[in-house]
This record gives sequence, C-alpha cells and structure tokens, in this order.
Amino acid sequence: MTSSLNPDAIIEAVESVINRSDFEPLHAPQFEGNEWKYVKDCLDTGWVSSVGKYVDLFEKMLADYTGTKHAIAVVNGTAALHVSLKLAGVVSDDEVILPAFTFIATANAISYCGAVPHFADIEFSTLGLDPEKLARYLSEITEMKEEGCFNRITGRRIKAVVPMHTFGHPVDLDPLFEVCVKYRLELIEDAAESLGSYYKGKHTGHWGKLSALSFNGNKIITTGGGGAILTNDTILARQAKHITTTAKIAHAWEFVHDQIGYNYRLPNINAALGCAQLENLPEYIRLKRNLAERYANAFADIQGVKFFKEPPNSQSNYWLNVLILDESCASYRDELLAKTNQCGIMTRPAWRLMHQLDMFSQAPRMDLTNSEALSNRLINIPSSPSIVSRTMEVNNG
Amino acid sequence: MTSSLNPDAIIEAVESVINRSDFEPLHAPQFEGNEWKYVKDCLDTGWVSSVGKYVDLFEKMLADYTGTKHAIAVVNGTAALHVSLKLAGVVSDDEVILPAFTFIATANAISYCGAVPHFADIEFSTLGLDPEKLARYLSEITEMKEEGCFNRITGRRIKAVVPMHTFGHPVDLDPLFEVCVKYRLELIEDAAESLGSYYKGKHTGHWGKLSALSFNGNKIITTGGGGAILTNDTILARQAKHITTTAKIAHAWEFVHDQIGYNYRLPNINAALGCAQLENLPEYIRLKRNLAERYANAFADIQGVKFFKEPPNSQSNYWLNVLILDESCASYRDELLAKTNQCGIMTRPAWRLMHQLDMFSQAPRMDLTNSEALSNRLINIPSSPSIVSRTMEVNNG
Repeated sequence: MTSSLNPDAIIEAVESVINRSDFEPLHAPQFEGNEWKYVKDCLDTGWVSSVGKYVDLFEKMLADYTGTKHAIAVVNGTAALHVSLKLAGVVSDDEVILPAFTFIATANAISYCGAVPHFADIEFSTLGLDPEKLARYLSEITEMKEEGCFNRITGRRIKAVVPMHTFGHPVDLDPLFEVCVKYRLELIEDAAESLGSYYKGKHTGHWGKLSALSFNGNKIITTGGGGAILTNDTILARQAKHITTTAKIAHAWEFVHDQIGYNYRLPNINAALGCAQLENLPEYIRLKRNLAERYANAFADIQGVKFFKEPPNSQSNYWLNVLILDESCASYRDELLAKTNQCGIMTRPAWRLMHQLDMFSQAPRMDLTNSEALSNRLINIPSSPSIVSRTMEVNNG
Repeated sequence: MTSSLNPDAIIEAVESVINRSDFEPLHAPQFEGNEWKYVKDCLDTGWVSSVGKYVDLFEKMLADYTGTKHAIAVVNGTAALHVSLKLAGVVSDDEVILPAFTFIATANAISYCGAVPHFADIEFSTLGLDPEKLARYLSEITEMKEEGCFNRITGRRIKAVVPMHTFGHPVDLDPLFEVCVKYRLELIEDAAESLGSYYKGKHTGHWGKLSALSFNGNKIITTGGGGAILTNDTILARQAKHITTTAKIAHAWEFVHDQIGYNYRLPNINAALGCAQLENLPEYIRLKRNLAERYANAFADIQGVKFFKEPPNSQSNYWLNVLILDESCASYRDELLAKTNQCGIMTRPAWRLMHQLDMFSQAPRMDLTNSEALSNRLINIPSSPSIVSRTMEVNNG
C-alpha cells in the first residue's frame, strides 16, 4: 500500500494556524518587555562590556528559573559546551558519545577538546539519544579499566555522553543517566534548545554534571548571541567562571592568569537583553505550547504526516515544531520544503547527520537506522510565539 | 647616583590633567553618538543576532576606516587572533613567535591552535617586538628546510610571528616584515589595541597576512565584546567569514557544514553599537592625542619618570597612556600603584610577562632583558577620551 501526501493540504493546515503575512520565519524573537529599558541602562551607565550588573543578574535569574545551583553566562552555546566538556575531564584523544542527529555545535565542541565524536542513534519517541540501544552497544564494544571505559575497537577511552534535547523535547534522562553511571561516563546535557523544558518535573540540565544553554537569535529567548553553563557543583561553577574569563586571578591592578583560559564572557549589554527576555519566558512558553496544540489539531486529519508531540514524562517548550512524514511519504520531503519556502512559509529539514559530513565521516559510530530514517522524514514549521498573539488579536478584533 | 621619585608629585601631575571626580577609571567608553538609535533599531526590527544589516555595515566601515580590503567582524579579539593564526596555516606543534610583553590573548590564541608560543623581546622605542634582536636570534637558532623555518633546538617548525602594538603604539613594521620574508614566517598583527594607529602613514594591520582588532569594553571603541579580522587577501577573507560562522554552506534551508568551524559571529546588536562608535572614532583620537600632549607637558619636569611618546614613523591612538619609571626608580612602582589606586586614580602595571606565567614557563624564549626591565618600570594612567571633553567644559565654563 502506498500512502500519499498532498503538499497543498499541509500548507493549508499550517496557514490555518499561523494567519501569516508575507513571510513567516521559523522562529522570530519578541521584544515587548523591558529589553530597551535594560539595554538603555547599559548605554547610560557605560557598562556595556565584560563586567556589569546584568551579567550577575542574568546568571541568578537563570539559576532560579532552572532550579540549578549555578549558571555561568558565556558568549554562546558552543562555548558553553566546550567548557562543560573540558571541566568534565574530556581530553585529547578521548571519545565522546553524542547523537548523529544534532546541530554541528555539539560535534564541534568535542573537536575543540581534541576529542573524537562517537555517534549514537536516537529514538522516535524523543528525537534524542536512545538509552537502551546505547546500553546494548556499549556492552558490545567497551571494556572497563581502572582509567574508565574503553572502546575495544579504537583503543580510546570513552569519557562522556552528550545528549541533545532536540527542538526542546527532553531525552529520556533517567535510563540514560543509569547507562552513564554503569559505564563511568560523564553526562553533559546539550540543553541549547530546551530552556523551559522539563523531564519528570525537573528542568532539563539537572542530570548533566554540567549542561549548556543557548540564547542565539532563533532560540526561545535571545541575548543576540549567548549561552550559559548550568551546574549544581559549586567547585565546577567556580572553575567555569574562571576559565571563561581568561583565568585571571582577581586583583585590583595585577594581570596574572593561572592557566590557559578563554575569552568567553557574555557582554553586559547582551545579558541585559537576556534579563528582559527571561522575564517573559513563562509567557513565551504558554504561547508556544498553545501553538503546538493548534498545530496538533490542524494536522490531526492530514494524510501522510504526523505532528510530533512531547515525549512521555516531559513538558516541552516546543521550541521548533516538528512534522514527521509517514515512512512511505519520505520522498515528498524536498517538494514540501521547496513549496513552503517558495510561498513564504519558512520550513527546514533536519540538520545533515553528523556522520554524513566530510569531517566526521570517519568517526566511530553505531548503527544509525533511526537517525537516518528521521532525517529523511522530518521538517520544522514556523514556531514564533508571536503567531499565537497575532492570531488571538485577529480573533478578538 | 640614586634618582628619587615622589609619588605625590606624580599624583599631582595626573590630577592637573584629568580634573577628576571621585574615581577615574583607566579607560571608560563614551556613548554620545548614534549608539541608542542603532541599538534600538535592532530591537524594533527584531534583528539582534547573527544576521542583520549592522554586521555588514560595521565590516564595511572598518575596512574603509583602516583602508584594508576586508574586515570580518567576530565575537572578540581572541577569536580574531585564533582564526587569523589558523588561516595563516599554523597547526599543532608549530612554534609561533610573539612578545613576552603582551596580554594573555596572544599566547592563548596560539595555544588554541595546538601550537607553542615562543617568546621574543621588545624594544624601548616602541614597546613592541624588536626586529633586529629577533633577526639575530633567528640566525642563531633556526635552519631553513623545504617546509619552512625550523627551530634547531626544539626541532619544531616556526610558522608565524605575531607582533602586538602595545597600548596603541605601532611596532617597527618594515624591518619586522623583512625578517618574516627572510625566514618565511607568516606575519599576523595583533592590532587589538591599535585601531586608529598608523605606521608610515598606513593603518596598522596592513603588514600582516591577517590582523586582529578588539572592541572590548576598555578599547578605543567598544561593541560590548567584539573583534575583527583585517586582511587584503580576498580568499582568506572569504575563508575567515566561513569558518567564523560554523562553516555552513549557504542554502535556504539545508544545514550542511564542510569543515570544523567556529561560532565566532558578532551579534547584530553589538555591531550596531560598533557602527555608532566608529562614527565617533576620529573625535576620540583627537581627544586622546590631545590628552597625551597634556600628560607629556605635565610630566616634562617630574623627576624619576618619563611619559612615553609615540615611536618615530608612527601616529598612535594613545590608547592607554604610559609612564616609564627611571631605571633607578623601579622600586617605587608598587608604592605608586597602591597610592594612585587608593586615592581613586586607576593605574595598572604591565601584564605579568608571559614566560613568568606557570603555563608558559617552559615555552621556548630568547633573552628577554628589555621586557623584564620595562615590566618593572611601566604603569598605565587614566586615558578616557572624556577626560579632555570634561576639562574643556570646565575651562570654558
């Protein structure tokens, strides 16, 4: 039996939800709170750069919001990942496990440590790492030594696992955490997309020794460019602050640095933007969950495609909404992408899988059947929180 | 004969110039132009992040101002150095020559490439690399092979030289360039401090294959945090833009990356600040050169100390003003630093020399007599452009 898919029906379903004007982006930020007030305060006081009250305030607000003990603001999500891996003890020639289905930053950050990305498969229910498949795989390829878990095939140590909460949907963290404990692997959460997403009632980022957030322009809140490291470990938090600020030893006038550090500070002016955005986050999440519900209804009866809903045990921020084409309709993907983008509805496919990129094609990997299947069948559709406010205005007006 | 130095006389001389209030910082930015207008435009249009008109405009304005063919805006000066070194071909286990007398970013950027910093001495007349001393040293320790210049002692290739234009004063670039040609070394200028400084009528950054600027909060213009790569080579410029933006291949919706890249984009909101600041740069330079002249006069007759003036052949931005204590007065340095900072005049000594930091103490180095002498005798004094406007207001009022 061949299923069929009608691109025009999908466009109609999207349009029934978004009430679009000429062009509907994938995710546009909203600045309707204290953004200008706080940014103007930076300009008025001259505190725009590496020191200033908004950096401290943003870190406190992030820690409070996520319920994590410490948040360290940095220049972007990639920097947050890089430093998290380093502080978790990843060194040159280690292997680090990550999904093949992720944004390039996860693999790049591993490379910056001189480590080797090792690609694992995802599961359909979360779009993230499959803990059970990983456990089976590790039981086959590893041996435990005093120094940790070793890949018997490459001879390299496997030091860490970096799940990514795809499009805001939490990975199944409890069983993944167990796998990490069993194989003595450090867990680092790539929570770049999941600010405001919860797993079993706790904010994502709590299971990792350290976790990384991103506030890039397309994220649920933005600081222009920015990121943060979350951790409940006070010593690691102190180290994170230290090495992201050039590892300078505090002194009124002397310039002494005690290790090779990084210039990964978030400028105060960007943190000011972040404070205002974070004040509005609960409202953005309300709007985005409402949007997801509308999409779910609009797509309930559309043939050949399913709207992706949050995994069990999770409450997702629905950062980017997801359609999964039926297996038999995968061949429609490119036509659908072309048609939607041509008519001003921005859509995009999954990122090219990491092991299909030239620079990572020789990296170790497990069977990636699910990743390959999903990457051929997934598209993201417009997800700005403003879609809902706009539609409500129209309905009310 | 023992010289003497009276700290109170120095404080008086500084005070005669700065007409200070409670606290005089080393260098505070000024936002009296279009900063608000451009930053607010970013918020009003929603373009705060990695794409937007101010990034392009800032790059064009920088290229025009410096007379360089291309400028690529990045997240900070360290990132600009890192990418410049990488694109100049510096790879793991290469050695790179730099002054021991520099800010940590120069050495860190070399380390990020997996290369080894190799410290060279500076000269008194420029506070930067001494080309003649470097030439003598290279003639003693190197041998030329097909693959380039090799350090006979360590066996490693020496790939590049990174002069730093200290406190805005240009290094003697012509003879240094000749040394680089002779030994087939790439020249990368660390021009982080020298925006607005000229050597023989041309802006600093023209001699390097690539050069790095910084717009940190304490620099002559600021973007909060930011930097730029300058180059006259169109192919390198394209590569620089590519690898600082995650090496993503341009496509309306696909996410394909062709190498391990970096997330080093300058956000649009920071670039907006930069555009407004750059419009005011000629005025800042006028004010700062005027300030330097006032200091020179105020210190003309003060015993035990000399105000540092721009090197021959150069026009300096006088980013941070410099006092050099007489050799016989070096022991007064710490007392002078303590007294000035205690009374609210911010001063600071030279950075701790690179080879005196733990992580670089084993790195190769030449005789560093001048660096060591100067680092014990140098202090920076308040240098904000606003000092002059403030004083002029007082004089006019």
